[in-house]
Amino acid sequence: MVNEFYMLLAISEAWKYQGLTYPNPAVGCVITDKNGAILSVAAHKKAGFAHAELEASREALAQLNPLLKFPQSPNELHAFILQNHQNLLKDSTFYVTLEPCSHQGLTPSCAELLCALHVKRVVIGARDNTKKARGGSEILQKTGLEVIAGVCEKECKELIEPFLLWQKGSFSFFKLAMRLDGSYDNGTITSIDSREFTHRLRDVCDLIVIGGETLRSDKPTLDSRLVNGKAPDVLICTQKATEKNAPLFNVKSRNVIMQNSLDFPKKYKNIMVEGGSNFLQTMKDKVNWFLIFYSNSFSSKGKQRVKIDLNLKLIYSSNVGDDLFCWYKQTVD
Amino acid sequence: MVNEFYMLLAISEAWKYQGLTYPNPAVGCVITDKNGAILSVAAHKKAGFAHAELEASREALAQLNPLLKFPQSPNELHAFILQNHQNLLKDSTFYVTLEPCSHQGLTPSCAELLCALHVKRVVIGARDNTKKARGGSEILQKTGLEVIAGVCEKECKELIEPFLLWQKGSFSFFKLAMRLDGSYDNGTITSIDSREFTHRLRDVCDLIVIGGETLRSDKPTLDSRLVNGKAPDVLICTQKATEKNAPLFNVKSRNVIMQNSLDFPKKYKNIMVEGGSNFLQTMKDKVNWFLIFYSNSFSSKGKQRVKIDLNLKLIYSSNVGDDLFCWYKQTVD
Repeated sequence: MVNEFYMLLAISEAWKYQGLTYPNPAVGCVITDKNGAILSVAAHKKAGFAHAELEASREALAQLNPLLKFPQSPNELHAFILQNHQNLLKDSTFYVTLEPCSHQGLTPSCAELLCALHVKRVVIGARDNTKKARGGSEILQKTGLEVIAGVCEKECKELIEPFLLWQKGSFSFFKLAMRLDGSYDNGTITSIDSREFTHRLRDVCDLIVIGGETLRSDKPTLDSRLVNGKAPDVLICTQKATEKNAPLFNVKSRNVIMQNSLDFPKKYKNIMVEGGSNFLQTMKDKVNWFLIFYSNSFSSKGKQRVKIDLNLKLIYSSNVGDDLFCWYKQTVD
Repeated sequence: MVNEFYMLLAISEAWKYQGLTYPNPAVGCVITDKNGAILSVAAHKKAGFAHAELEASREALAQLNPLLKFPQSPNELHAFILQNHQNLLKDSTFYVTLEPCSHQGLTPSCAELLCALHVKRVVIGARDNTKKARGGSEILQKTGLEVIAGVCEKECKELIEPFLLWQKGSFSFFKLAMRLDGSYDNGTITSIDSREFTHRLRDVCDLIVIGGETLRSDKPTLDSRLVNGKAPDVLICTQKATEKNAPLFNVKSRNVIMQNSLDFPKKYKNIMVEGGSNFLQTMKDKVNWFLIFYSNSFSSKGKQRVKIDLNLKLIYSSNVGDDLFCWYKQTVD
């Protein structure tokens, strides 16, 4: 199959973890052996976890030698693979959505890893132009690996848009959960899987933004208890003075900011905005992306419905448990 | 990679043509070579076109020998491949969502083809229990091919539910196009790609069903002009006598039935129901599946909105052009 086929597999895997990898980019990786058989399809799942190339190497080696017992921590995993790869990935091809990193960050350089594994060919989607990570291709080429760059480049660049925005300042998205008819009455709409996914997103956000209406009507906690995660700081955009009687105020080591302004404080980089129709109307031009969870139901009793004008561009859709979830951007006409 | 990985690729490819293969089942096929490298991912696209196994063989051979010039018609293609395969698919593995057919139908037996190609292994999703096609596995096994059946069986059985219903009587689905807020005012909502897809579906339907409200307000033509296809018969379910002044009445060689009953005439097997909220409410328990096209927009001016109670199960989602489209079943609690 053509390079694009494997790159699209890698892209699709990476999207499953979009938003969860902060401050790292969402990256996917597919490895094929010297005969072209797929050995693994993997992605970077979370900062502090293995990079996509390392995770894909682990999964490929686990398949080729089921006796290998891999350590958990990415640094130990990197060292373990360097010592135990037995040239099993010699002459393989790596398809990576983003250029392998050149630098020692939380984990060692992926470019160096690929050289040590005696990989034959590295097919890259988007170049990494960030100051500390760039230069991976040069390391690979100097060691004699074949490098092909720019495969599905547009899709791979879209995948790392949040990452590039974190680099420059902040990335924000509006998260909405609704039924198929746009209704979203108070209470539980989506499945436990969607709510767990939301909590995983909250766990890696440094700021959740809500409007005064949500505060007053929902009295939310806005933590990530479903995944034993943290409670990010909260910004409440409201014009009215509001009683501080919601559970969100009672969470230790959290800052709650109340302001009569829609500007996000500069120190926050990964920002999730939550709310209903009115707050979506207020914030739609302030956020970068939109994440909508759809429960697969229509409800004639739905009193609250999204009623705004907004044209979106679908970037990714998938199911999470029984629900559907989609990432969108605003259309620029 | 495990068998399930390739089967899911085959299933995913088959779903792209769901509804378009009538009276044939939607079937997908992946071929890997003797070393496990993927040679092709293909599906059956339309009755009278190549079966999935034949189409996948063509695509694999085209890749292995770019000089081969394949004929168009499936019968000629079958004969051509038998003569020109040069053992290029020897020892390959075929992953097929449905057991290869044993019989000579519009095209020759796929099981016989696989034997002639000296395929090593055939991995099957769902068994074909239909009278005329069953027995493919026995042909393969008698010739010495390894057969593994029941991989992703549940998903593969779901894929052919429309086919099994056509066998027993009829399969019907409700097609709805709406915005993300459930609004669907008259006029064009979805993109040209979605409307072309709808016309491709109409082209293979033998009956379109609408309500009197759609007839009176939309005055539709209900043909498949966007794909130069046919205009299926139309059933109008209405309690009121209605003037026959819509363009749909002026299409040659079409039967239009008007009746004060919701029962589909027995002679029709592939039935597409089109309408808005009221007709969906009327028909929701009469149809087997639901197909919803979503344009990626919200409109505050949307006056007509879906306002019913309905719990669905998402079976497949994808994008068609800029839009999202989803196949659903009704949830059985």
